[in-house]
Amino acid sequence: DIVAAVEAHFSAAKKPLTGRHVLVTAGPTHEPIDPVRYIANRSSGRQGFAIAGALARMGARVTLVAGPVALDTPPGVTRIDVETACQMADAADKALPADAAVCVAAVADWRTSDEASGKLKKSQDGLPHLNLVENPDILARLSSGGKRRPGLVVGFAAETDDVVNHAMAKRLRKGCDWIVANDVSVESGVMGGGDNTVHLVTDTGVEDWPTLPKQAVAERLAERIAGALS
Amino acid sequence: DIVAAVEAHFSAAKKPLTGRHVLVTAGPTHEPIDPVRYIANRSSGRQGFAIAGALARMGARVTLVAGPVALDTPPGVTRIDVETACQMADAADKALPADAAVCVAAVADWRTSDEASGKLKKSQDGLPHLNLVENPDILARLSSGGKRRPGLVVGFAAETDDVVNHAMAKRLRKGCDWIVANDVSVESGVMGGGDNTVHLVTDTGVEDWPTLPKQAVAERLAERIAGALS
Repeated sequence: DIVAAVEAHFSAAKKPLTGRHVLVTAGPTHEPIDPVRYIANRSSGRQGFAIAGALARMGARVTLVAGPVALDTPPGVTRIDVETACQMADAADKALPADAAVCVAAVADWRTSDEASGKLKKSQDGLPHLNLVENPDILARLSSGGKRRPGLVVGFAAETDDVVNHAMAKRLRKGCDWIVANDVSVESGVMGGGDNTVHLVTDTGVEDWPTLPKQAVAERLAERIAGALS
Repeated sequence: DIVAAVEAHFSAAKKPLTGRHVLVTAGPTHEPIDPVRYIANRSSGRQGFAIAGALARMGARVTLVAGPVALDTPPGVTRIDVETACQMADAADKALPADAAVCVAAVADWRTSDEASGKLKKSQDGLPHLNLVENPDILARLSSGGKRRPGLVVGFAAETDDVVNHAMAKRLRKGCDWIVANDVSVESGVMGGGDNTVHLVTDTGVEDWPTLPKQAVAERLAERIAGALS
């Protein structure tokens, strides 16, 4: 009937990501040094969780791979909790195939090569030496060719200076489609704050978005993703 | 009148720490590597916050110096939030004089000697080298002589093996009065869990306490502190 048809029409208009699967990574990773110590990145996970929620509201099936954060899972989102970069890379890989991937997580670049099984002691013989090795590069891995590559891969770049240039270089180096660049210098107040000032770097150029609540940044990015996948 | 006298009597019995000032440190410390990375200790802060709350319920004026944790301040407790070990040492020093100090915080033993003002980059020329320097030893500092030394200084020892022997050695090395030793090996489930199995190491020996909820460990320790100060 007419009413159902009209409802279906507007429902489809409001849920343009129905039938799509989007992978989102969010939060920090924690890399153990020993049973009581770890190296971590500062990340509340709020921007990534907001993006996962916005995508779900637009109809997408969302897999959210989350590092250790104190946040509730947005409605309609399937969440997989991880701690380390290796676990996050593994969970992201298992979540494929996906129509789009949005890598918001602040993944630790390094981990210690040999986690101590016992607590390192303050010792007479000086300070501990941390042997660091590079973690898997989740964004580069998702962006690399192959039939499992999501149609759209979006990375985030948290920079403290020369934000847009670093982001443009990162887009090319990683092979992803878009980079959302933001200024996380102490002065910006982004870390742990409610607002975000971002620049969307694509193959056609750079868009400077106004300072917006993280929720509004999420809605706007979700709409752009829906447009790119339509 | 008689009623007031009886009430005062029982009130004093239930609040044996009235008029006493107790300093409690709790939670981890975060030591910045650069604006987005840090080294941290695993500590939910739950045991320390429970102790601060128990002491306040027994009438003490409690100053709680807390590292970064996601916990509410217990009723009646004055909380000072800090991030690094140096800030915690400074706040603890400013909180003196105190009748007792209970150092529950998992203070990072080391910090980087030169926090980078810009984000360290994954670079072509290999891995970053972290120069670590020792942090101030808050427990040893509080335990050292002088007229500002609290009458009772209690430390905590989180150990993964040979728990009691490490704790006995730590008590002598730091110069504190008591050490509450607990097993934080992964198998113990103490880290982030609700229960704790502790051993109280004093100058007269070692008491093995049964496994108890952290709240019950807090009540029992607060009663012991009240006894020592009475």
